[in-house]
Amino acid sequence: MEPASVAIVGASDDPARIGGRPLRYMMEAGFKGAIYPVNPNRATVQGLKTFPSIRDVPEAVDCAIVAVPVKFVVGTLEDCAAMGVKSAIIFSAGFAETGADGEALQARLSEIAKQSGMRILGPNCIGVLSFKSRFFATFSSTGDGGYTEAGPLAIVSQSGAYGTHLYAVARSWDLGVSHVITTGNECDIDVAECIAWAAEAREVKVIAAYAEGIKDGPALLRSLDLARANKKPVIFIKVGRSEEGAAAAASHTASLAGADEIYDAVFRQYGVHRAETTEEMLDIAYACTAGIYPRDNRIGLMTISGGVGALMADYAGKHGLDVAPMPEAAQEKLKAALPFASPRNPVDTTAQMFNDLSLVGTNFSAMLDEGKYSIAVAFFTIVAASPYIADPLVKELESIRARFPDRLIFLSLMGPPEIVARYRDAGYLTFADPCRAIAAAAALAGFARSFAGRSSATPLDTSLCSDLPAQALSEWESRDVLAAAGFPLAPARIANSAEEAAEIATSYNCPLAMKINGAGITHKTEIGGVELNVATADHARQVYGLLHGRMKKQTPAARIDGVIMSPMIAGGVETILGVQVDPVFGPAVMFGLGGIFVEVFQDVVFRLAPFGKDEAMDMILGIEGVKILQGARGRPPCDLDALAGALAALSRFAASHGETLASADINPFTVLPKGQGAVALDCLVVPKGARSKES
Amino acid sequence: MEPASVAIVGASDDPARIGGRPLRYMMEAGFKGAIYPVNPNRATVQGLKTFPSIRDVPEAVDCAIVAVPVKFVVGTLEDCAAMGVKSAIIFSAGFAETGADGEALQARLSEIAKQSGMRILGPNCIGVLSFKSRFFATFSSTGDGGYTEAGPLAIVSQSGAYGTHLYAVARSWDLGVSHVITTGNECDIDVAECIAWAAEAREVKVIAAYAEGIKDGPALLRSLDLARANKKPVIFIKVGRSEEGAAAAASHTASLAGADEIYDAVFRQYGVHRAETTEEMLDIAYACTAGIYPRDNRIGLMTISGGVGALMADYAGKHGLDVAPMPEAAQEKLKAALPFASPRNPVDTTAQMFNDLSLVGTNFSAMLDEGKYSIAVAFFTIVAASPYIADPLVKELESIRARFPDRLIFLSLMGPPEIVARYRDAGYLTFADPCRAIAAAAALAGFARSFAGRSSATPLDTSLCSDLPAQALSEWESRDVLAAAGFPLAPARIANSAEEAAEIATSYNCPLAMKINGAGITHKTEIGGVELNVATADHARQVYGLLHGRMKKQTPAARIDGVIMSPMIAGGVETILGVQVDPVFGPAVMFGLGGIFVEVFQDVVFRLAPFGKDEAMDMILGIEGVKILQGARGRPPCDLDALAGALAALSRFAASHGETLASADINPFTVLPKGQGAVALDCLVVPKGARSKES
Repeated sequence: MEPASVAIVGASDDPARIGGRPLRYMMEAGFKGAIYPVNPNRATVQGLKTFPSIRDVPEAVDCAIVAVPVKFVVGTLEDCAAMGVKSAIIFSAGFAETGADGEALQARLSEIAKQSGMRILGPNCIGVLSFKSRFFATFSSTGDGGYTEAGPLAIVSQSGAYGTHLYAVARSWDLGVSHVITTGNECDIDVAECIAWAAEAREVKVIAAYAEGIKDGPALLRSLDLARANKKPVIFIKVGRSEEGAAAAASHTASLAGADEIYDAVFRQYGVHRAETTEEMLDIAYACTAGIYPRDNRIGLMTISGGVGALMADYAGKHGLDVAPMPEAAQEKLKAALPFASPRNPVDTTAQMFNDLSLVGTNFSAMLDEGKYSIAVAFFTIVAASPYIADPLVKELESIRARFPDRLIFLSLMGPPEIVARYRDAGYLTFADPCRAIAAAAALAGFARSFAGRSSATPLDTSLCSDLPAQALSEWESRDVLAAAGFPLAPARIANSAEEAAEIATSYNCPLAMKINGAGITHKTEIGGVELNVATADHARQVYGLLHGRMKKQTPAARIDGVIMSPMIAGGVETILGVQVDPVFGPAVMFGLGGIFVEVFQDVVFRLAPFGKDEAMDMILGIEGVKILQGARGRPPCDLDALAGALAALSRFAASHGETLASADINPFTVLPKGQGAVALDCLVVPKGARSKES
Repeated sequence: MEPASVAIVGASDDPARIGGRPLRYMMEAGFKGAIYPVNPNRATVQGLKTFPSIRDVPEAVDCAIVAVPVKFVVGTLEDCAAMGVKSAIIFSAGFAETGADGEALQARLSEIAKQSGMRILGPNCIGVLSFKSRFFATFSSTGDGGYTEAGPLAIVSQSGAYGTHLYAVARSWDLGVSHVITTGNECDIDVAECIAWAAEAREVKVIAAYAEGIKDGPALLRSLDLARANKKPVIFIKVGRSEEGAAAAASHTASLAGADEIYDAVFRQYGVHRAETTEEMLDIAYACTAGIYPRDNRIGLMTISGGVGALMADYAGKHGLDVAPMPEAAQEKLKAALPFASPRNPVDTTAQMFNDLSLVGTNFSAMLDEGKYSIAVAFFTIVAASPYIADPLVKELESIRARFPDRLIFLSLMGPPEIVARYRDAGYLTFADPCRAIAAAAALAGFARSFAGRSSATPLDTSLCSDLPAQALSEWESRDVLAAAGFPLAPARIANSAEEAAEIATSYNCPLAMKINGAGITHKTEIGGVELNVATADHARQVYGLLHGRMKKQTPAARIDGVIMSPMIAGGVETILGVQVDPVFGPAVMFGLGGIFVEVFQDVVFRLAPFGKDEAMDMILGIEGVKILQGARGRPPCDLDALAGALAALSRFAASHGETLASADINPFTVLPKGQGAVALDCLVVPKGARSKES
């Protein structure tokens, strides 16, 4: 990022051409390092002496920019590697994005990187902008207007056009950028590595990332964990949420994308804010530049318009912020200071603020001191832009800022940029639209919770790790492997003869469910493999025979391995737990309510395994239907603690068999009333070996 | 709005004071009418001769601006009325918003208006801005920067500060405004009347409205219907959606607010877009200024960045737009023109657009001609701002605009205002952020559907209208009144003796439900008033006695009026239908799925009565759980047509008893498989007279 010497292979004399732009941008911006243009056809380009080949450059080169036609790229890179160049940035396109031939060519680049240790960015990328060192190794035309000073935002993007668009928007907002790194086809350096780098870079305070798909899931997780540990917020746009978007992303880069809901889980789990639009992303990034992460989600609203106060309150409520009322005593005080005011929250100064600006100080003091809001938004609109008001108002605000340095405070105001800048210089975040300030505040409250939490990389007890067998498991065997991970199962015994069934029934002495057991038998109920409410020894004996008889008819090929007998469990709420193995991120645990909630409403959540009970509880609270578990309609609240424990145990199970597990399905998993636990009534674990044999 | 003569009562010589500003603004802006300042203490103000009282003004006054302390307001208004002033605008505060005394004072103003025919705006309003006539009767400081030229947007707001803030934002966006009308306490003229006025005003193309609460529901409905008939889109911010917002709105104006979900129903039913933020409101208003309402929701996306293409596709999908792929033949043609392009939709021109701007024309032609998209969004970002590109690109685009005048086309671009203006002048809508263009496009597609539909004011057959009795009804009586409106009920007979019950059982000859009948008996099941699966005469005879016995014990005071006997109905999906009477808007029909869907998820929709089957179908499709009615989980699809018919019938019932109905509750209402109808299994109609007796 701060090379002492740069070679530009394919350097052009025309400052508007791809090979000419980086040279022009760096010279214009005052890049301090040495620049070596490489061009076999000219003696000089843009006034600098050229070299016929990278091999002719007399000194060590830190970074080579490669802007040559695709057919020359591999040769150039081999030359660079031979010359000990430390890194290369490849603008050239025509690699994996074009088909099989391009893929092969790109694989060769990856090999060169691996063998030589030279790091490669691209190909098919738009380059790198590094603002502090004025290293503008890019052909993006964003430089045509001149580059701004360095700021706290690092932009990391697979898409070059989008990465530089983000910079252009940030520049138009006066939001300072430290780096723009575009990774293109990622033959070597990927988005995850860039995030990790930015997480460690001192000048970076906040990271905005864009990706169409991630190839190395674990690398992304490590980089997100590092960013969190260093309290660097990450805002991520991952496209492909909708079918159309996924199709567009696929046609753009053909990147191997994991399931979109798994990305949701990753972002949630690692405290990343997933944004949907550029404005949302940069609003939050801008708010993060204050470096203030609120300790809770209580928001105080101040307004000169009661109408906007109500609008802000609605919007804050929608974004999960708590528009808690001011303490009664403070309300009375404000009411005494301004009888027409509405002091509850929003605190409405009315137009009286025009006449008495000290009201702003009084109100802010009361709100931050007595109201103890960790977030405040004040709506001043164009009023604050009047020079008569700006002078005294900025002074009022400066003293407030000094007294409450740890509060996240936004001003909603409009006016000439130079006046708005005065409020920013006084230490305030400014937005024209108060609702955008509120949405950003909610995101920062989310980062604060994430920073306060523990790392998501839950250590796994490796003694638990073992391989599953390579063939299909029966329910009874599935129970065994789940129980070993501490997963709660309904009590059960297995009968291998009618007589044994009768004995078990006698010993349980309560109504039982009897289920046929055998490797790979699914949909037991549909094929008549289950009988309920078996209460006596005689009945059990009879059912044992009945089930075997049915199976002989229905699935003569299946190997029957006894009958599972389990006491009937009444009450509780049925849920579904499962494990899916994502191609990018590995095993993920799924949770949802049973029946229509999963099948019709897709009301399910995922988390990557392994995770602890805290994360499991967050997961449970993440489904729409959680109210049903919490005791809606006069039902007793369920044992959420037991459910969270089960989810965490399932995640340990999933993680410790990651390589050999294909999926697990626990359905139903009954959560009993609080204090009574939660148990699996049925389960099936499918090893990877079994699945590949089937297909 | 265009007075020939204006008096300013309380006119001030100080152009910064409330009584001084309107005078200054109108003089600066070149208002053509006569201005008569009224001030008993000075001979001139701001260079104009004053009059001691409105009574001393020598000529007829069209409009009086009243900016005097609250204690002088009534006297001033009486004077105005006596002098035949046509309208008055009252800035003064201290009326209904301050408590009982202020309310009495405001009532006096309403009286003056009624008796004299003089129309009054306010009190406690910030006035009126009328841009064409340069009539700036306001003390808002928005005028300090000078007022802009007239444009197509009318702003109507109860909140003065918010109304003028909206104008300030519109001005900063170069979005032309025709009028800003702030209605304040609405002693006479209200928001509804202003919308109706704007709906008829020739210079108004789009209406943005803000309200905290509506007093006269029917007036609002008439004005919205008028706006729709005149194809004027209405975008509405109604605050008070959340508890906190409602509290803030109430403390601000103490306006009588109907239930928020009824506002949702009204806006949906009348084709109004309900916005949540200022930007959302003005984005849509700006898009409406093109006057193009797309005939369907198919959107074509063009991009110079594949990444942004995917992002736009995701966002369009989220907003219910159809990112339909281009026809195969057209895709092949585009692929031939640019092999690296992705021609599906989004159509990705790649950076190649820089080199060959004719690609833009080629792509747009293919998208609009062969793809037949009614909406298109092209992402050009800062590239389009380069003067080398702007010249030829604008030319390309002008020819496209001329060829496809009926398509709604947005350009997403950034750059100096004067360059952006060239694209606007070429007939395109421009947005910096493509996602905001997409959200606005979706809103315009909604307006198009609404404009194409019929009026919401469904005529009611007045022969149906009648008063309900003033006492509680039994289920049997409720059935009668519902059946009279054509509402479908399960077949039933009533038994008044055990012997009759036996006879009825014999004649039905199928399993029956038997339910106790009596005025005001609710929760029959809970008190043991229902028995199911009664199949024989003997059983029926026995149950008849059993139910009576239980009732004697449980509710000895209740008058039992026989037992309702009804064949058991198996299958179908249980729903809940109901009628609520909103204090502002009158009777509204509620619909939701039974059980947890209503009680836990509040998955219900409302529509004002009466309405037809089309609206009922829109209502049914508006609940989340509609998939269950459409046949999720392998169940047969339900008879939605019968359900829609029942909802429409219930709405006729509700409307025809509007004045005497308190509520109706049909629960469960079973919707059978397609072709088999839908019937109420239980119902209770509560007349208003019965409810007031209870309380």
